[in-house]
Parts: sequence; structure tokens; C-alpha cells
Amino acid sequence: MKEKMTIILFSGELDKAIAAFTLATTAAAGNMEVTIFFTFWGLNILKKERLTLSATQKLLQKLFNLMSTSSLPISRLNMLGMGAWMMKKLMRKTNAASLQDLMKLARELGVKYIACTTSCSVLGLTGENLMGEVDEFAGAATYLSEAKEAKINLFI
Amino acid sequence: MKEKMTIILFSGELDKAIAAFTLATTAAAGNMEVTIFFTFWGLNILKKERLTLSATQKLLQKLFNLMSTSSLPISRLNMLGMGAWMMKKLMRKTNAASLQDLMKLARELGVKYIACTTSCSVLGLTGENLMGEVDEFAGAATYLSEAKEAKINLFI
Amino acid sequence: MKEKMTIILFSGELDKAIAAFTLATTAAAGNMEVTIFFTFWGLNILKKERLTLSATQKLLQKLFNLMSTSSLPISRLNMLGMGAWMMKKLMRKTNAASLQDLMKLARELGVKYIACTTSCSVLGLTGENLMGEVDEFAGAATYLSEAKEAKINLFI
Repeated sequence: MKEKMTIILFSGELDKAIAAFTLATTAAAGNMEVTIFFTFWGLNILKKERLTLSATQKLLQKLFNLMSTSSLPISRLNMLGMGAWMMKKLMRKTNAASLQDLMKLARELGVKYIACTTSCSVLGLTGENLMGEVDEFAGAATYLSEAKEAKINLFI
Repeated sequence: MKEKMTIILFSGELDKAIAAFTLATTAAAGNMEVTIFFTFWGLNILKKERLTLSATQKLLQKLFNLMSTSSLPISRLNMLGMGAWMMKKLMRKTNAASLQDLMKLARELGVKYIACTTSCSVLGLTGENLMGEVDEFAGAATYLSEAKEAKINLFI
Repeated sequence: MKEKMTIILFSGELDKAIAAFTLATTAAAGNMEVTIFFTFWGLNILKKERLTLSATQKLLQKLFNLMSTSSLPISRLNMLGMGAWMMKKLMRKTNAASLQDLMKLARELGVKYIACTTSCSVLGLTGENLMGEVDEFAGAATYLSEAKEAKINLFI
């Protein structure tokens, strides 16, 4: 049986997402079974570029849903997005893999994506708003049953 | 013997506290033994609504102690508290459990609370300032001895 | 064989660094084998006080490298550094160990430091910019092989 790793991706920042996907893809490439559980702001990372906000979605939910993969801030020195732009530029110059590259690789390597049902409900998100890459919508109980079997569990 | 989970709750934000208590209550409901170790800003979550600041408490300590359970900010888009208010409103509308509900449930399910002695000392907090729910005041060594026995250890 | 703990130190804030080094030194003092993997902002903690920025380092990298051990902000209520100054003052008054004390102790107790190669490359950091205390420059694969053997793995 493969060794397992789980990551709860709670944060919606570019730098933390890159850290999470670097760990996930390296682990999967090294023959580990990896699950990422996306919750709260972490769901931003899975959101479609142009989120079609449904008419039924409430104003408050719309406000919490302005971010998507390409517009993520960084966790420090974001400076209204200039920091995130600078970091992406530095990563290109030093040939570091972008978040989009890492996310594509993660799917190719079979990293499993679970979206937290409670967070989706609070934020008014459905499968239609997320990239067609979510393997499962589930809650904390599902996460815990995976984490109990895993060698490495991280909250990012 | 029950399987164990530990959570170090370092952050004092509403959204992270909700994530921590959702995991803790779900685990405890699923027959796991759960310990939350409250340190630094995480102690805000345990503070009494109306903190009676003792005369001996220094001005600096008072400044760090303005937050309590009902006035926690959220980790992103807090916008001077408007974000936190919006999130609480969305949670009520979608029937998600509030932090207060989850904390009540955690105690009913026997989740163990440890308050970090060093942080309490730095912040000038005593048992009187915290809700009457702390099982133990202890340091990192106590946390480590619990975490070594646990299947899941998270830092939130 | 000794029991192991690993910490990914991603955050560059004083309070989180103190939490990480308190756990690391307590674990090492209790005969555990501890590895800290410094990545992204966490590298700030290892940076020399007066970072001699090389001529080849790009402007963008210089901007991301303004912080070092003695000027770290705190994760909340930093208030342009006043919060960090207040926290350091409170820690001195209550005789809590400073970050510098904890880092010195960590080395004496044999805590292993790994600096993330990808982050160093993106930020333009070399061995010369970091305190002479890094045991190894390595990537996610090295971290994962250590974490798989460890009882406690935290992402801070």
C-alpha cells in the first residue's frame, strides 16, 4: 500500500498555494498518495477564472468570491497585488514552476482534490464555479478518515 | 485505546478558529481523543467577553488583550471587522454552526483544552481572564508528549 | 532510534518563529531529532543582520529581502513594527526567551536546519546571505523523506 500525505489548504494566497502544490506534486512523483482538502479561502485556488455568479448568490457571497487562481494575493508584502506580480515575475526569471504548472502536474500525478462542503455552502459555491477537477465534495469526517491513515498531515 | 488528534491553535482569527473547532468536534464525535493547545493569539478565543484587566497588568499587555471570542477578526478581507460580520451573517443564513456552538459542542464531547503557560505569562493572562474551561496550563513539553502519541497533529 | 519532529517554517513573523523554535528546542531537549525546513518568508529568520546584496541581485529580489532576524514583524497588530517592539519588550519583562536565545539553544541542541533551494533561487539568496548555520540546501523531496519517518510534522 502507498504511503499517504494529506494537506488542508485553508489559505488562499499564492505563496502558500505554491508551497502546498510543490509538496503535493513532489510527494505524488515519489509514489505517495496525496489528498488536498480545500476549505475556506483555499477554495479560491480552484475557482474558475471568470466566475459566473449565479443570480441566487447573495451580495455578501459575491464579495467573498472576487479572487480566483490568476489573481491570488501573497501572504506578505502584497501591496495591492504588486507583491504577487513581482513574485510571479521572479519565479519566471528563475525558471521556478508557476502555480498553474504545479496544478496541471498535480492532476497528471493523480493528486486527489476534495472541496469542503460546508465552506462551499457558506460561500455559495457549486461544482459549476470550480474547475472541473474536484474529485469529491465532502466534510471534516472524510478528511479525518484519510488523515488517520497518512504519514504526513499538514494545515496550510 | 482511542486514536488521538492534537491541534496547536496559534491564530486568533474567527475563520481559523472555526476550522480548528470543526475538525476537533468532528474527530471527538468520531470517538477520537482531541487536545487543543491554545497559544499566542489563540488564547483570544478562550478569553472572557468582558476581560477585567487587573491593575497589575501592564499597558502593553492591555493593548494585546483587546480581542475576545465575540470580536475576533477574520484572516483575510476583515475590513475593520466588516468581513467578520459578513462571514457570521453568511454562516447564519446557511445554517452553519457558529464558533460559540462549536465550542459548546467541543466541551460536551470532551475535547481537552490546554493553555500555554509562557504565552499567558507574556500576555498577563491568568485563569480568571479565561473561560472556566481550561483543563490544564502547560508548556511545549506537555504538547509534545501528547503529539507523539497522536495520529494527526495540526498547527493552525 | 530517536523519535523525530519536522517543522516547515514558511512564515517570516517573529511570533510564529518563536513558536517554532520553542517547540524545536523543547523537543530536542527531550531527546527528539528535530529538522526545520526554512522556505519562503521563513528564510528571513536565517538572514544575516546586514545583508550584503550582491550586484547581480535584481531589484525585485532586493525588495523581498529587506527583513532579517532583528526586524521581523509579528503576524497581527504589527502596527509598522510597534507591535513587534512591544512583544519583545513584554517578553523581556516576563523573562521569556528571545528568538535569538532560542536559535542559539537550537544549534547547541543539534536542531538541523535545511534551507529550501527553490526559495533561495527565487529570492536570490546564497549561503553567504544566510547565517553560517544551514546544514543543508535541499528541496521538497528531502523534506518528505524526513517527514515520513517523523512522529510530528508541522507547517508554521
